[in-house]
Amino acid sequence: MSTLPPRSASLAPFFTPNGVAVIGASRDPSKLSYGVVRNLVDPERGYPGPIYPVNPKADEILGRRCYPDISAVPDPVELAVLIIPAALAPGALAACGERGIKAAVVISGGFREVGPEGAAREQEIVEIAQRYDMRVMGPNGIGVIDTHTPLNTTFVKGMPPRGHIAFLSQSGALCGGIIDWTIGRGIGFSRFLSVGNEADVNETDVIPFLAADDVSRVIALYLEDVKGGPAFADALRNAAAAKPVLAIKAGRTTSGQAATASHTGALAGVHAAFRAACVQTGVIELESIQALFDAALALAYQPLPAGNRIAIVTNAGGPAALAADALEAAGLQLARTSPETQAVLRGFLHPDAPVAGPVDLLGGADEGDYRRALDAVLADPAVDGVLAILVPQALVHPVAVVEAFAAAAAAQSGPARPVLACLMGEASLDAAYQAAHAGQIPAYVFPDDAVAAFGVLWRRARWVQRMREQESGGRNQGSGGRGQETGGRGQGAGDRRQESGRPAGDARWSIQRAKARQEVQDAISAARSAGRHALDAAESRPLLEAYGISAPPEALAISPDEAATFARRIGFPVVLKLISPDILHKTDIGGVILNVQDEKAASAGFETLVARASAAHPGAHIRGVQVQKMVSGGQEVIIGVKRDPTFGPLIMFGLGGVYVEALADVSFRLAPLTLADAWEMIEEVRSARLLTGLRGAPVADRAALADAIVRVGQLAADHPEIAELDINPLLVLAEGEGAIAVDARIILAA
Amino acid sequence: MSTLPPRSASLAPFFTPNGVAVIGASRDPSKLSYGVVRNLVDPERGYPGPIYPVNPKADEILGRRCYPDISAVPDPVELAVLIIPAALAPGALAACGERGIKAAVVISGGFREVGPEGAAREQEIVEIAQRYDMRVMGPNGIGVIDTHTPLNTTFVKGMPPRGHIAFLSQSGALCGGIIDWTIGRGIGFSRFLSVGNEADVNETDVIPFLAADDVSRVIALYLEDVKGGPAFADALRNAAAAKPVLAIKAGRTTSGQAATASHTGALAGVHAAFRAACVQTGVIELESIQALFDAALALAYQPLPAGNRIAIVTNAGGPAALAADALEAAGLQLARTSPETQAVLRGFLHPDAPVAGPVDLLGGADEGDYRRALDAVLADPAVDGVLAILVPQALVHPVAVVEAFAAAAAAQSGPARPVLACLMGEASLDAAYQAAHAGQIPAYVFPDDAVAAFGVLWRRARWVQRMREQESGGRNQGSGGRGQETGGRGQGAGDRRQESGRPAGDARWSIQRAKARQEVQDAISAARSAGRHALDAAESRPLLEAYGISAPPEALAISPDEAATFARRIGFPVVLKLISPDILHKTDIGGVILNVQDEKAASAGFETLVARASAAHPGAHIRGVQVQKMVSGGQEVIIGVKRDPTFGPLIMFGLGGVYVEALADVSFRLAPLTLADAWEMIEEVRSARLLTGLRGAPVADRAALADAIVRVGQLAADHPEIAELDINPLLVLAEGEGAIAVDARIILAA
Repeated sequence: MSTLPPRSASLAPFFTPNGVAVIGASRDPSKLSYGVVRNLVDPERGYPGPIYPVNPKADEILGRRCYPDISAVPDPVELAVLIIPAALAPGALAACGERGIKAAVVISGGFREVGPEGAAREQEIVEIAQRYDMRVMGPNGIGVIDTHTPLNTTFVKGMPPRGHIAFLSQSGALCGGIIDWTIGRGIGFSRFLSVGNEADVNETDVIPFLAADDVSRVIALYLEDVKGGPAFADALRNAAAAKPVLAIKAGRTTSGQAATASHTGALAGVHAAFRAACVQTGVIELESIQALFDAALALAYQPLPAGNRIAIVTNAGGPAALAADALEAAGLQLARTSPETQAVLRGFLHPDAPVAGPVDLLGGADEGDYRRALDAVLADPAVDGVLAILVPQALVHPVAVVEAFAAAAAAQSGPARPVLACLMGEASLDAAYQAAHAGQIPAYVFPDDAVAAFGVLWRRARWVQRMREQESGGRNQGSGGRGQETGGRGQGAGDRRQESGRPAGDARWSIQRAKARQEVQDAISAARSAGRHALDAAESRPLLEAYGISAPPEALAISPDEAATFARRIGFPVVLKLISPDILHKTDIGGVILNVQDEKAASAGFETLVARASAAHPGAHIRGVQVQKMVSGGQEVIIGVKRDPTFGPLIMFGLGGVYVEALADVSFRLAPLTLADAWEMIEEVRSARLLTGLRGAPVADRAALADAIVRVGQLAADHPEIAELDINPLLVLAEGEGAIAVDARIILAA
Repeated sequence: MSTLPPRSASLAPFFTPNGVAVIGASRDPSKLSYGVVRNLVDPERGYPGPIYPVNPKADEILGRRCYPDISAVPDPVELAVLIIPAALAPGALAACGERGIKAAVVISGGFREVGPEGAAREQEIVEIAQRYDMRVMGPNGIGVIDTHTPLNTTFVKGMPPRGHIAFLSQSGALCGGIIDWTIGRGIGFSRFLSVGNEADVNETDVIPFLAADDVSRVIALYLEDVKGGPAFADALRNAAAAKPVLAIKAGRTTSGQAATASHTGALAGVHAAFRAACVQTGVIELESIQALFDAALALAYQPLPAGNRIAIVTNAGGPAALAADALEAAGLQLARTSPETQAVLRGFLHPDAPVAGPVDLLGGADEGDYRRALDAVLADPAVDGVLAILVPQALVHPVAVVEAFAAAAAAQSGPARPVLACLMGEASLDAAYQAAHAGQIPAYVFPDDAVAAFGVLWRRARWVQRMREQESGGRNQGSGGRGQETGGRGQGAGDRRQESGRPAGDARWSIQRAKARQEVQDAISAARSAGRHALDAAESRPLLEAYGISAPPEALAISPDEAATFARRIGFPVVLKLISPDILHKTDIGGVILNVQDEKAASAGFETLVARASAAHPGAHIRGVQVQKMVSGGQEVIIGVKRDPTFGPLIMFGLGGVYVEALADVSFRLAPLTLADAWEMIEEVRSARLLTGLRGAPVADRAALADAIVRVGQLAADHPEIAELDINPLLVLAEGEGAIAVDARIILAA
């Protein structure tokens, strides 16, 4: 058997094939398969290589000689496009394999998406692909477009402009709309892929190919159903290290998720794992198609800013005010021009023209005014990027103004600052939009959309910068920013981030971990053998301790006397907690008694708890009452785990009690975690400001908290049997005093 | 002196004048004043009445006879448009007054916006308007457009389509962009006003006129600087009772606000008062120009939904999934079609077509399929509105499909449900967009924009419904929904809202209030006479108590012995609080000692507090130590007041401590408040779920809290001298036990 080339390299024939056959090509203009040939032979932007329609009933289609079957097609032929009834597809695909073709697009529908019979047919496709070492894209996708080759295997009318945005869509039906809109807007693509059912080629294959592709400067993904899991995450991480990756995922709010027994499960929803994967791999998630392409356009055409100070140059105050409002929400700030720049501007502008904040050229400004103002502002060291706004005016020529934008952007000396445009209008601005894109100036109708795109440039810039810092710190994991993207000034966080790496960061941890792993494995096996899947606090404790997560001294009492005795041994005050596998939320029934001061109270407390449990849940099995050293002071937090079916263990952090329950103020990351990840999780939670000594409260031991988060992540990553886990609360003590898991439960996978 | 007609009625000549003179009309096509005449004489959509260019140097302009000055213009002439150098404007305006013209648009700039000389000129304009009983719009605005008359006094190229959206802009420069964009999108206006510097006619005059205007179905406002204050709020309230009012305000995030001494001041920012005014008057605030017109379009063309269950009918799964994601964020839900509807749909759709959630007609669907599906879904009692999505397909005719949308929407029997369209694309959809607007189907490029517009329809529907409930409860204040807007099912809250009206809602309160008012007035006068503007807890207490807000027993000790004595009299445990006008945030320096159990501790505590104050703020004036009964249990909340320069007293509510400080989880309303307002303030704060007995905590006395909020509002409304006020904390005790102001401070206006 032959050795396969690297999977991603083998995708080249989909974009730059030498010869394309269309199996099922029709002469009937009302058929989709006619549209495929029409796009291929298009006189202006058609495929320049050999095109072979295959149809036993025709001699020629659209002036191209037609072949009765694929075996009759002469060399060279490297790509087959199948658009025939599903039942015939496997046979035709096998014939392509026999003919030596290594790449096929199956546009036909009627496979997995239509039920068991179709799924069997799809399995045949997979087997044929393996048998012949072929790569198959689809079925049930609309194919590929490459604007540089050029090549368009879809039946969709219209060819997008040449450009530098690579786009992958898991929905074929969406593509027609995207193509139509982007043609209207002048948004250019490099590669455009509709991957359909992903019987063979899937997003995890495609992303590395696009990452390595020189004509693609940015990758945009429309996703519905991610299958790759960890491999997909790796592909994203590597791609995002090479160039910006943007993603939108449909199905963010599906309410059909299974009920879960933990807070973490309930709060994670269906989307937290994907979101965490984006954050951890450097992928930028967007929430609308328009925002996705608005951002892609900016990333494709303009350099990254070195900082977040955005100047506004405008001929109208209103849109500038709206832009200024939008800046803050996007994590940016309005640049204040320097006195020198203001002097230059005052030299040629109307005396009333504001020049300190937004530079308002006033309504009569022409292309010369814009050019001089942009030159001045782009040379100002207090400016990291410029938003140029044009509202159409009676005597102003929009195309000339836009050309001035492009000229000023191109004329910069030294590291270039990004220039984005807001051309506010539509009826009279078609030519101006075309001029903008011709000059590589991303242009938007409304100021807030332009600012949002600037916000993405800045997010990307910060991420590149952080990667660099980690690299220069020598302790990063994989990945690195490319020289072509700029870094510059940024938002601190460097020092601490350099502590990234595995917990404790030394050899000792890895030795302990092997032992810990075994201990936990044994405990899990024992619980499972006993038919137990929900582990209470007492049962969960040894698993946590094995991974270095502290818990207070405690003992399980099964009688009032034992409660008194254990309490004396542990030392007062103690806390009493009801332990019952049937009562998961024990505070709901008053199942916890705090601050028990003496033996008599301990004994009485035992009886109270048992009585409460019996009243609330008659017949509940009561394992006993946990007597625990009462730890006072400190801040209650929660650390949770939920295993995501695609991405594996998802770790949650939040402040305990109402912060989690009423405010859902929590953060998520996928395990295993670096220490830098854990710090980010803490910083992302707004109420975690409570840990920093707000208003005279003691500063909490956040380092110990971050360490505990990493350890929980490691525990979950090492043991796929752990389906869910809640440490609630983990008590974070004053700085230097550590963090203690006061209560916990673990749910094992069935 | 003649009696003026009602201010709003006198605006009619701006829109339907009999005769228009253009003072300063030019024959030079490069002048803006030429553009004004060009728009007026436009052969297709020009002004149909007499047009009089006024220019001493010309005989005719664009075929119209020109007059040397306004006195020479024959009858009829009711509107003058001035576009001449600012210095000449007052004289020309006076001449218009002499000529008997009652309405003038001053387009010229060079007034208040350029400094003192211009401001003096603007004052002249105001005086001339008063002298001649004229209404003047501008200066420094671009004038008015009425698409029904039709009349266009602006120099902007292009006339927007006829429609039913009234638009007022406080920015003239923005208008060119809006007109250009709306022409491109086919968005129609009824009246379009650029009010400029508002020397005379301002937003408070215009809004009642638009509210009473039959051709305007919805009012959209672009605001930068609201001057009207309470009168403006009244105008908004009355207008919103008649028809939907939408607003966007620039300058939401300006960082130049003055420093304030209270939490409330810091949290309110520059925008909270405007936002509160919108909420309380029924105005819907949007945050982008696009969202403003997206929503206006929906409100202009479609009925309000009776509920929030939105069905999706689509020919592509991807955009439907994105729409479903967006529904939740907009306060809507995806409709589940009933079994009967599903049966009808299955009767003609492909067997694979999903019909339960989004109804997916699949790629090949034509106008007939859409029509049948829409008819079925619009007749389904489980559906309150329909989003119809079209992605262009090779063999589908977009115009025919859109006509099917309009036909189905028009053919509904019984109360009509709204139908909105997403036409995803641009290059091939121009005709489809035109067809949509011709058929009164609002159409959007992206599913999330369509869903956001649906969300606004639903917000308006709920508001109309709530007004009706208040009316039928007989205790509303002003306003009522119009019969043409639908009400239907809603979101509870009816019973409690009917309690609206003034606090306690009975005559006794108004008697007490006169007395309370006098007491507080006296206290304020006394403090001011003593040169005191920051009132501490002890000084604030009588003001609160006068308005029926309870405080715990307390006394101000000025020696350790007094602290001990007072503590014994009040009863242990007590709280000790440092009282110093120089130390506003006393917890920062440990200025509070809780749970003081005996006289010795009270005496020692006094000394501790004084020592801490001296250490932290050497030289601070210390008034003494407040000894206060310690109230235990209950939930700490904050009620604050900040006087907004435009809207008056702004009331803030939030949960005490970190909820306010770290999370900014607060709500705002303008005083005076109804009880319903107070309940809304409580419900708007997420952490206020803590008051409802979350996780076994006692249910707090929210009724007492709402009552206290109303009383604070009344205190602030009655006494403009109160600039800021913080009750922090107000302790809300268990249900039935009331709420107690534990600490407070009041800042008087200088």
